Amino acid sequence: PLRGKASSAVRASAGPAGMPSVAHREVARAVAGEAEARLGDRLLPSAVPADVAEFRNGDGTALGSLDVRRGAPGSSIDFMLQSSLHCKVPNGAIDITSLFINLNASTDAPHFVMEFIQGSPTSMVVLLDLLPRKDLALHPEYIEKYYGNTEADKQRKIIEELPQARPYLSPSLFVRSAFSPTAVFFTIDCGQGGESVLEEIVHGHLASVVKGLLQIWLGTCAGDTSEVDEGEREIMVKRDRTVRSKSIEVDLTANLPRMFGPDVSGRVIAEIRKAFGVEEA
Amino acid sequence: PLRGKASSAVRASAGPAGMPSVAHREVARAVAGEAEARLGDRLLPSAVPADVAEFRNGDGTALGSLDVRRGAPGSSIDFMLQSSLHCKVPNGAIDITSLFINLNASTDAPHFVMEFIQGSPTSMVVLLDLLPRKDLALHPEYIEKYYGNTEADKQRKIIEELPQARPYLSPSLFVRSAFSPTAVFFTIDCGQGGESVLEEIVHGHLASVVKGLLQIWLGTCAGDTSEVDEGEREIMVKRDRTVRSKSIEVDLTANLPRMFGPDVSGRVIAEIRKAFGVEEA
Repeated sequence: PLRGKASSAVRASAGPAGMPSVAHREVARAVAGEAEARLGDRLLPSAVPADVAEFRNGDGTALGSLDVRRGAPGSSIDFMLQSSLHCKVPNGAIDITSLFINLNASTDAPHFVMEFIQGSPTSMVVLLDLLPRKDLALHPEYIEKYYGNTEADKQRKIIEELPQARPYLSPSLFVRSAFSPTAVFFTIDCGQGGESVLEEIVHGHLASVVKGLLQIWLGTCAGDTSEVDEGEREIMVKRDRTVRSKSIEVDLTANLPRMFGPDVSGRVIAEIRKAFGVEEA
Repeated sequence: PLRGKASSAVRASAGPAGMPSVAHREVARAVAGEAEARLGDRLLPSAVPADVAEFRNGDGTALGSLDVRRGAPGSSIDFMLQSSLHCKVPNGAIDITSLFINLNASTDAPHFVMEFIQGSPTSMVVLLDLLPRKDLALHPEYIEKYYGNTEADKQRKIIEELPQARPYLSPSLFVRSAFSPTAVFFTIDCGQGGESVLEEIVHGHLASVVKGLLQIWLGTCAGDTSEVDEGEREIMVKRDRTVRSKSIEVDLTANLPRMFGPDVSGRVIAEIRKAFGVEEA
């Protein structure tokens, strides 16, 4: 029934019919809406086939949505990608919401990355970063410009100071290496009976931090117009491609097929590869 | 009275007369001894003036030692640097012990970095890493070779699993960016009355982890003979220099003058700059 439906009409972060409401998904939707409003016509309309804009597995226990908007020609936006997954598991459900806004090679400013992974009603993992595009140890001035002067670390500290938060360390050594020194990587665990506490944190501290980082990104990164040196651009393009390929490998090819089976997940991953501009390995 | 004394006779990690015994200093000495034994004649004799090999402030409340051995010509060792500081403060003392073994540009293998900072009898900060020399997000094969295949993360986990350990985050965004994804960065806090617990951890888990990482470094890094591409070498040399300059800035020029006054700290820092091959800014 979804085929033929204009994918641009789908609010990817809201998810398809049947996708339950989760506090973090509401926050993601608000943030994506704010980004779209601010980026305006720098974003082209949605360009995802309807059977990828919304998808589900055979028995309907897994639902997903994907929306990709490319940047307009002449803008510094490469793409904005939103996705939402809901997957029933024996003792509950997993809900994953992602928002990536990537810049193109006209700038070396960081990408915006947001991912919420909620595995129970009382706990979730938050990944939130201005993803660096240069080797930070070689470029202290880049750290200063995008992470020091912007006071991005103050946002991270808001979550760090929550008694329910503890640092999250990805099992992937690559993921650990790719993120910035101010990345907000935390597990928030509110313990038994903590459903409403988690909701309060998500709508309160977390929403505030996400919006704070989006403002930094919109102000300092999305509008950056400094020239990128030709040689540095080549390295940056290769670096971006490596990070994107690895993130597909770690995030998607490892998990989506289990949730949606090979056909659906193949279609979805192909669309994400297209947005990321990376070929299948 | 120290002038004229052969500095090679000084065990820097033991520290000068009057430097109190601390468990972590004993571990550092053992590890440095193991490294020296294994590296053998790849290390030249000590080459530090006597008034830098041991130093103290005017009223004797701060004591320090520094030992630098350069790598022998034709070896891949750049230098091995050990230092030990003891500084009385109003409510106790701070003890800092460092061991850096740096490789030269004949290899891109990681350096060995170890630093213990003990600010009370019951708590300390541990920094321990195979310090990467390439942009890890651009070189996943480097992560694989030195951090994945070596199972360095298993060593990190030994400390992570201690109930007394919590992740340490440097206030310096640069320091956070320079270290590897398996860096052992922890505060170990044994709480009131925990003096003997801390000693046990230092002589037990911590000593084991330091030795484990040294074995990995000796086996995989110190003997690495793979060719470094000319263009990559140039970037690596610049990267090494940036990391070294920044670490002097963050670690030493911010702290040593407070402990030892400008004259002594100037002499010591100049000697470290010489070892690091970096000019004063």
